[in-house]
Amino acid sequence: MPSEFDLIRRFFTHPAPGALLGVGDDAALLAPAPGTVLAVSADMLVAGRHFTLQDDPAAIGHKTLAVNLSDMAAMGALPRWALLSLALPEADEAWLGAFATGFLSLAARFGVDLVGGDTTRGPLTLSVQILGEVPPEAALRRDGARPGDEIWVSGVLGSAAVALAARQGRVALAPEELAVLAPALDRPEPRVALGLALRGLAHAAIDLSDGLLADLGHILERSGVGAEVAWERLPTHPAVAARLAEPPVRRAVLAGGDDYELCFTAPADARPSLLAWSREQGLPLTPIGRIVPDGGLTLLEKGKPVTPGVTGFDHFA
Amino acid sequence: MPSEFDLIRRFFTHPAPGALLGVGDDAALLAPAPGTVLAVSADMLVAGRHFTLQDDPAAIGHKTLAVNLSDMAAMGALPRWALLSLALPEADEAWLGAFATGFLSLAARFGVDLVGGDTTRGPLTLSVQILGEVPPEAALRRDGARPGDEIWVSGVLGSAAVALAARQGRVALAPEELAVLAPALDRPEPRVALGLALRGLAHAAIDLSDGLLADLGHILERSGVGAEVAWERLPTHPAVAARLAEPPVRRAVLAGGDDYELCFTAPADARPSLLAWSREQGLPLTPIGRIVPDGGLTLLEKGKPVTPGVTGFDHFA
Repeated sequence: MPSEFDLIRRFFTHPAPGALLGVGDDAALLAPAPGTVLAVSADMLVAGRHFTLQDDPAAIGHKTLAVNLSDMAAMGALPRWALLSLALPEADEAWLGAFATGFLSLAARFGVDLVGGDTTRGPLTLSVQILGEVPPEAALRRDGARPGDEIWVSGVLGSAAVALAARQGRVALAPEELAVLAPALDRPEPRVALGLALRGLAHAAIDLSDGLLADLGHILERSGVGAEVAWERLPTHPAVAARLAEPPVRRAVLAGGDDYELCFTAPADARPSLLAWSREQGLPLTPIGRIVPDGGLTLLEKGKPVTPGVTGFDHFA
Repeated sequence: MPSEFDLIRRFFTHPAPGALLGVGDDAALLAPAPGTVLAVSADMLVAGRHFTLQDDPAAIGHKTLAVNLSDMAAMGALPRWALLSLALPEADEAWLGAFATGFLSLAARFGVDLVGGDTTRGPLTLSVQILGEVPPEAALRRDGARPGDEIWVSGVLGSAAVALAARQGRVALAPEELAVLAPALDRPEPRVALGLALRGLAHAAIDLSDGLLADLGHILERSGVGAEVAWERLPTHPAVAARLAEPPVRRAVLAGGDDYELCFTAPADARPSLLAWSREQGLPLTPIGRIVPDGGLTLLEKGKPVTPGVTGFDHFA
């Protein structure tokens, strides 16, 4: 059986052209670009909770990095470096090789160097730390939303949660519908380019990992403001839109986790720039409501406040 | 039951005076001091492997951060910030409170701000990322050892591994002996001040997490040199020294993990400065051998090469 060191070397020791010193010492040495500060975050994925052992390990590798890239996007940061810590039940070369391929392909696509981490035996757990750069004045924080801002989301909402519900038998989808929704769940596309484009345009941003209501709620709480969101404006895939009357689907759109789209607020005069960027990039950006001085989050349906009837995803709730 | 967000807020949201932005956004924002680069590393600890659920959670909290601070020490870096990701089987407030106390007390003692992380449900797993600062030319890398350098270790070797062996019934210790050795295992003291003092003095350094032979082996491999180490010079606690004839004890000294002392190489003319620092600080520094051009690692006993008869600790071997 290959040793831990052999496995790490074989799969994860890649050149790190963006680091002063990469894998192989007690620490990596990194120099953020002049004029920038460091944006740092971490996410942990656990087998049986965030993925299953039956899932394609390449997709798990993709998603493990994608959720971290999404945090950089939500901060308006350029991702540069990542660390990966793995607990593995056994040194399974085939699983690890496919996982590494999924992880490192996405890293290469975004110019992210894997510069360190740890490997140990244990219940399958994947922990990533990501580091990026952002000019401090351009960072997209959660606390900058102001009354009058429009609230926007990228892409469509609920696809990942509806795909999960379909796999678990809670929503009935045709196989071809599941096939078009599943990539949102299995291989989310982090909105890094959007995050960079929002520098100087957006007042506040967050990525939708726990669902729209919960994540927009974080912006409201940190900014000390309220919001009105129009149910009819929420962008969804046609396969989802056709089933909005089903409670699990409504729940997926409002509170489904794993969308990894960005939710952001911007002044009304940013609208032309945002719509122009959306057209150029082919990524829908949709205004879904507006920031108000207070009153928490109000969901409007046909112009009238309604009770959402769902709450955000809380890992311990 | 309190929610994940409640627990995180209660135990882990502390002021982060050394960060531009701490816990609570998509990422923390950090600015390394002018003239420094960032040193970054990660370690993961798993229940049942690195600690047990019967262990004092405050000691686990201490050790989880200590092993990461030790990586900063081995790099000659000043630790500044940490991220903590936890998978927990349940939201156990008592366990988490004691763990947080152990972790945050050590963080406060070293001036380290907890600036982010993640919490999820899963088999108990602790993953820390640590970030520090070091002037790039002063970093203590593994690849700088040169023939003629003396090889040094701080503190004493094998105490942690002998304490573990005693708890597991493989070595017989009197209770008072175990009581003096156990802190090396349960609450290792990271050698951060030594790492900073070695800037400009040492050519190469590593921390002893996997045992002397394995870790010194990493310096030799990365530096392309060999080493001669004298068995009789290896510093040990009297309770360990009295049992060096026992194979598990010999193994603990040569290859026991968890010492978290520093092993470093320095030119002979650094000896007076090193011994002066040792006296001032009350931390033993012991020359144990020297770097030679090649030939791998040779252990000398009574001046003659011997087979160590043990190998380093490998998590998957």
